[in-house]
Amino acid sequence: MDIKNKSITSREDDFAKWYTDIVTKAEMAAYSKIKGSIIIEPRGYAVWENIQRGLDKMFKDTGHENVYMPMLIPESLLQKEANHVEGFAPEVAWVTKGGNNDLEEKLGLRPTSEVLFCDYYSSKIQSYRDLPKLYNQWCNVFRWEKETRPFLRGREFLWQEGHTVHETSKEAEEETHRMLNIYKTFFEEYLAIPVITGRKTEKEKFAGADYTLTVEALMYNGISLQSATSHYFGQRFSIPFDIKFLNRNGEYENPYQTSWGTSTRMIAAIIMVHGDDNGLVLPPRIAPTKVVIVPISKSEEVKNKAYELLNNLKDAGISTIVDDSEKSPGFRYAEHEMNGVPIRIELGPRDLEKNQVVLARRDTYKKSIVPLEANLVNEVNTLLDDIQKNMYETAKARNAEKTYECTQLDEVAEIMENRPGFVKAMWCGEEECEMKFKEIRGTKSRCIVDNEKPIDDKCICCKKEAKHLVYWGIQY
Amino acid sequence: MDIKNKSITSREDDFAKWYTDIVTKAEMAAYSKIKGSIIIEPRGYAVWENIQRGLDKMFKDTGHENVYMPMLIPESLLQKEANHVEGFAPEVAWVTKGGNNDLEEKLGLRPTSEVLFCDYYSSKIQSYRDLPKLYNQWCNVFRWEKETRPFLRGREFLWQEGHTVHETSKEAEEETHRMLNIYKTFFEEYLAIPVITGRKTEKEKFAGADYTLTVEALMYNGISLQSATSHYFGQRFSIPFDIKFLNRNGEYENPYQTSWGTSTRMIAAIIMVHGDDNGLVLPPRIAPTKVVIVPISKSEEVKNKAYELLNNLKDAGISTIVDDSEKSPGFRYAEHEMNGVPIRIELGPRDLEKNQVVLARRDTYKKSIVPLEANLVNEVNTLLDDIQKNMYETAKARNAEKTYECTQLDEVAEIMENRPGFVKAMWCGEEECEMKFKEIRGTKSRCIVDNEKPIDDKCICCKKEAKHLVYWGIQY
Repeated sequence: MDIKNKSITSREDDFAKWYTDIVTKAEMAAYSKIKGSIIIEPRGYAVWENIQRGLDKMFKDTGHENVYMPMLIPESLLQKEANHVEGFAPEVAWVTKGGNNDLEEKLGLRPTSEVLFCDYYSSKIQSYRDLPKLYNQWCNVFRWEKETRPFLRGREFLWQEGHTVHETSKEAEEETHRMLNIYKTFFEEYLAIPVITGRKTEKEKFAGADYTLTVEALMYNGISLQSATSHYFGQRFSIPFDIKFLNRNGEYENPYQTSWGTSTRMIAAIIMVHGDDNGLVLPPRIAPTKVVIVPISKSEEVKNKAYELLNNLKDAGISTIVDDSEKSPGFRYAEHEMNGVPIRIELGPRDLEKNQVVLARRDTYKKSIVPLEANLVNEVNTLLDDIQKNMYETAKARNAEKTYECTQLDEVAEIMENRPGFVKAMWCGEEECEMKFKEIRGTKSRCIVDNEKPIDDKCICCKKEAKHLVYWGIQY
Repeated sequence: MDIKNKSITSREDDFAKWYTDIVTKAEMAAYSKIKGSIIIEPRGYAVWENIQRGLDKMFKDTGHENVYMPMLIPESLLQKEANHVEGFAPEVAWVTKGGNNDLEEKLGLRPTSEVLFCDYYSSKIQSYRDLPKLYNQWCNVFRWEKETRPFLRGREFLWQEGHTVHETSKEAEEETHRMLNIYKTFFEEYLAIPVITGRKTEKEKFAGADYTLTVEALMYNGISLQSATSHYFGQRFSIPFDIKFLNRNGEYENPYQTSWGTSTRMIAAIIMVHGDDNGLVLPPRIAPTKVVIVPISKSEEVKNKAYELLNNLKDAGISTIVDDSEKSPGFRYAEHEMNGVPIRIELGPRDLEKNQVVLARRDTYKKSIVPLEANLVNEVNTLLDDIQKNMYETAKARNAEKTYECTQLDEVAEIMENRPGFVKAMWCGEEECEMKFKEIRGTKSRCIVDNEKPIDDKCICCKKEAKHLVYWGIQY
């Protein structure tokens, strides 16, 4: 595509600026007066609603129920699990006043709700008959971060957090993997974002977890994004929170827990994986508007035809709008490209004469002519599927290009400096070697994978025996 | 019904205790460690999700879009509209610390989001072409109340708040009425709760509004509940917040605004209007589980039949469960009655022999026998409709019984002391007379109605000329 929307920075010139330009120009979000908190505007929120709808159905289909916990956490409750409080305390914002009175105990704005769920479970669970508990909540959370960026990192953001309790470690571990796979499926099939999955190192795992599984995505610029996580807690929370159940042998036992979550950060991933120099590119499965019909003439006939097509598409459940505003066709094209609408239908007097419409796809800009005697609904549905698939394949091909195998640390340095991406390298398992990567533009382990072939038998750093194949990357 | 579930207090003995018993025994909500904040449990949250789905569709069908505003409000922003801050400041909780640092300006937990929307609109709106803005958000809000009760009044609760901006006062006033009517329709058609609607007096209107329209419901015990409100602001916010648009005459003008909201308080209304001594009674349209099938024998045949019926009903989109747990049939009946499931299907070996099932309705406890060759899906759907209708009619008849016309204040006193309900009485419009009612068990004006015939020409208090017919009541 030659034409470039001049109202936004080019992706190649300044990726960070390009990103925030799209966020604001496509009206996904606006900055607010509250540092680090954004206003999610209608288009951004509609994407979030589609994400919620898709994920929530997958959660419910696997037996999970939604609940709502209080947002405020008494300081004493947050302190019950030592690693957990150590990990989160520096980022907690505190309520100290209610009305005109100072509170006796300060209350934290939830950064995550493990301790609230644990406190609830400790009073609710008595017997193995009460298990499993498979709960999830959709809510706002707070992390008092210094550096923030819309959707990527905010002092307040929206997310879901699942918290489950099981009779056996086996069931809990199965749950941890089940939810990881749900996230992977959702990213790949709904968001058209290929991901790698694996286990976090000890250093990178969730504060308080036994282990953390993660979904990692690669953005267009080769920077990686931790996109969803699923934690196995074992009894690390159930012991300090005194959650106990009478097991099948009539003995009291601490149950086994998991938690898992993903957030509005997914919207950042959509933008940074699929967007281009003309704006947002939304995968059809989560695009609030899938088709925009643009009549390119003011004739009544053309306009009537546009609305006739609108009704046909809407009746078939394809979310469609007509844009017959006063603005020039070119201006309207640019606007809907900015907004990421997957298909534009162009309709002019000559098309009407020839009894046809033009379908322009957002992902490749390719146009095709469809005779009106054809079944437009079918044509559009086929094209939407094709766009969804192509977006995934394009991202996957790019990931393959940006994934490197290294056996020397200086190769990693060269790559991360010049053409960052995922680096696959062998690791001995020692934190000292893991920290060596950090000196290279802050590169961190993304995850340990055990379903890929080792590429060497020695650790890339210390040259001692390698234990794991690890994906490394620079992270957001 | 003779049998009474002994695990809960009787509604006649102690209504307040009966209410909290149902909330906890039907597992709608649990108390949390945070004073005044509840845990909304799966059943309560599933009701809330059905409420959200129903209302959200009505909002979207009338052109509204969802957004998400930050939860924290800088103190200076909250103070921009004088009446508004005066009304809400005493109930605001404040964040004063982020991580280990004291904040420069304290941040309030939103009690409502007018000021955030206004601040956003002031930067977003430039021309009449940008209007109307029809936004809504679903979120948590905070009011630092002293007395709290689950769903009725909490320090944290969930709600929706619509905030709209219009070119003309006429459009904004139409919106105010449109949303009031949506609430009324929703209460009557989904929640089976008959309501009265009208205008709040100056004393009772929303802090900062030009006027407030309200939806008022009457609980089983004759206490009234303000259930939803719709406010017309005129330019009262757009002026101090400097929201301006270039109108069609090329002049700058402050636009006209509305806001409207309802909350998880609706769940309290459902419980207190429909519940009985055996527990919750949920209107079919918002019941998460509409039918429970209880096999009353352990025979494989009966169990198989139960699951066959389950699949038939589920395929027809009727949310159904089978309860084939070990507990006795009577115990299971009581449990699902407590949980408010509209229809119970009983199925035993003799029913199987006779090729029939028993349908027991939750609202009237009446049972009917349905031959299995009949179309069970149709029978169930018809019964669900009938239950929905009957619940509404029952509540409506009770409201009629508990609505009184008075022309003397001592009649009001006698009624409110012995058999509270809605009192209709004429009012001169003076606050002094309005305050006279407050001496009677705190009775307050519910709303001014103008679509009913005046019952007198004199004010019930001062005997001067009456201006308005007013509904009065004791409120939650």
